[in-house]
Amino acid sequence: MITLSLIGIGTGNLDHVTLAALRALNNADLILLPRKGEAKSDLIDLRRLLCERLLEAPVTTKIVEFDLPSRDGRHDYLGAVDDWHAAIANVWAQQIDEHLPNGGRVGMLVWGDPSLYDSSLRITQRLSAAGKQVEVEVVPGITSLQVLTAEHKIPLNALAEPVQITTGRRLRERGWPNDAATVAVMLDSGGAFTALPQDDIYIWWGAYLGMDKQCLIKGWLSDVGDQIIQRRAALRDTHGWIMDIYLLAKQPLL
Amino acid sequence: MITLSLIGIGTGNLDHVTLAALRALNNADLILLPRKGEAKSDLIDLRRLLCERLLEAPVTTKIVEFDLPSRDGRHDYLGAVDDWHAAIANVWAQQIDEHLPNGGRVGMLVWGDPSLYDSSLRITQRLSAAGKQVEVEVVPGITSLQVLTAEHKIPLNALAEPVQITTGRRLRERGWPNDAATVAVMLDSGGAFTALPQDDIYIWWGAYLGMDKQCLIKGWLSDVGDQIIQRRAALRDTHGWIMDIYLLAKQPLL
Repeated sequence: MITLSLIGIGTGNLDHVTLAALRALNNADLILLPRKGEAKSDLIDLRRLLCERLLEAPVTTKIVEFDLPSRDGRHDYLGAVDDWHAAIANVWAQQIDEHLPNGGRVGMLVWGDPSLYDSSLRITQRLSAAGKQVEVEVVPGITSLQVLTAEHKIPLNALAEPVQITTGRRLRERGWPNDAATVAVMLDSGGAFTALPQDDIYIWWGAYLGMDKQCLIKGWLSDVGDQIIQRRAALRDTHGWIMDIYLLAKQPLL
Repeated sequence: MITLSLIGIGTGNLDHVTLAALRALNNADLILLPRKGEAKSDLIDLRRLLCERLLEAPVTTKIVEFDLPSRDGRHDYLGAVDDWHAAIANVWAQQIDEHLPNGGRVGMLVWGDPSLYDSSLRITQRLSAAGKQVEVEVVPGITSLQVLTAEHKIPLNALAEPVQITTGRRLRERGWPNDAATVAVMLDSGGAFTALPQDDIYIWWGAYLGMDKQCLIKGWLSDVGDQIIQRRAALRDTHGWIMDIYLLAKQPLL
């Protein structure tokens, strides 16, 4: 019998880990750490550090690193993602068979929260197709969106108003969503906000949220839009990778 | 000098408290606990329990309970809320003056996360009008929405699709938002989903999320909509209050 815990670990600030995550980590017999290639080596370093700091001595948990398969770059985005998830499920199943042949508890550390633009739940669902029956447990974690609003000291929603959480790709394609006073944008490969009118929109931007190298910028798009694009490019050059998100609003939030 | 920490404490499950929240609680010189009337006495009981369990001995933190002013029931909703926030800011300022005359650190325990449909940041901003200058710190907490998705083991977003977070009131007025594959509904006083076509919408509902009396229902609206309305009314009768939220989708989420 395998129990798989998808453990939300927040965004790299160890203080954002919950007591439930701490317990799930320490209860795991096996923790699987995916390697995503050199460029994002900071991310696996942070996961290693988290295990080192948060696992209680004596550490009886087996920690295993493995290479993630890479995603097919073909045009059919959803199809490529689907194949990729199936390939990852196969690798998870192999790792579990190899390192936990008699069953037990497996922990996967999920950046942010397993519910928000994360593929762990979808991959988990494909485990049964990969011949692996597991009991799933989800441990919520603080998302980068919550760290963004906490660091800027703003709410996500204008008073009694709806919020749209969307992707950079979608913002470029469709512009400002019809029925939202604030829009949170994730997974933007850079500057999707330039597709919007710049004059009457305020932006709260953050990169590497929760980490030592966190960077925050806020202001009217017409004032700070270019600055954000330049800073983003420079930070990406410096660190070899970047994760950033932002919140947009057409009215004051407080 | 006053530092005010708005501490997200999750939804009543002590395990969802973060290490940062634990530290902020223990660093506070004064914790203010608002009483919201008899009907919601469970909520202040949970806050008292949280202080009792999470403050480290010897407890040097002063814990003070105070009565929240009640909101004017007038038609002009936003105006009434604005006046109410100003009145609460005055009460906060009085409590801080009385119990921390020489300055220090004040902690306010915020249900869920201070960013999401919570008034603490707005009240804090009004403190300066109430004659009180404070340094603000925001500590993110797990929201009921994250507990909903964790308990149902689903993502918030369909693959690469946007999510709308909205209120029951708005859902009744406007129906399904134009540009969202999933819709999370909060602050619904009951059954706002009946304003939608019932046939092709799936609902994941949860009440008292994270608490011992947590209740979950999921299914097509046409199958479980009535059941949710009846269960909600019965639970509210039993406990004297209810907090519930739900996620709606027109397509499978996994």
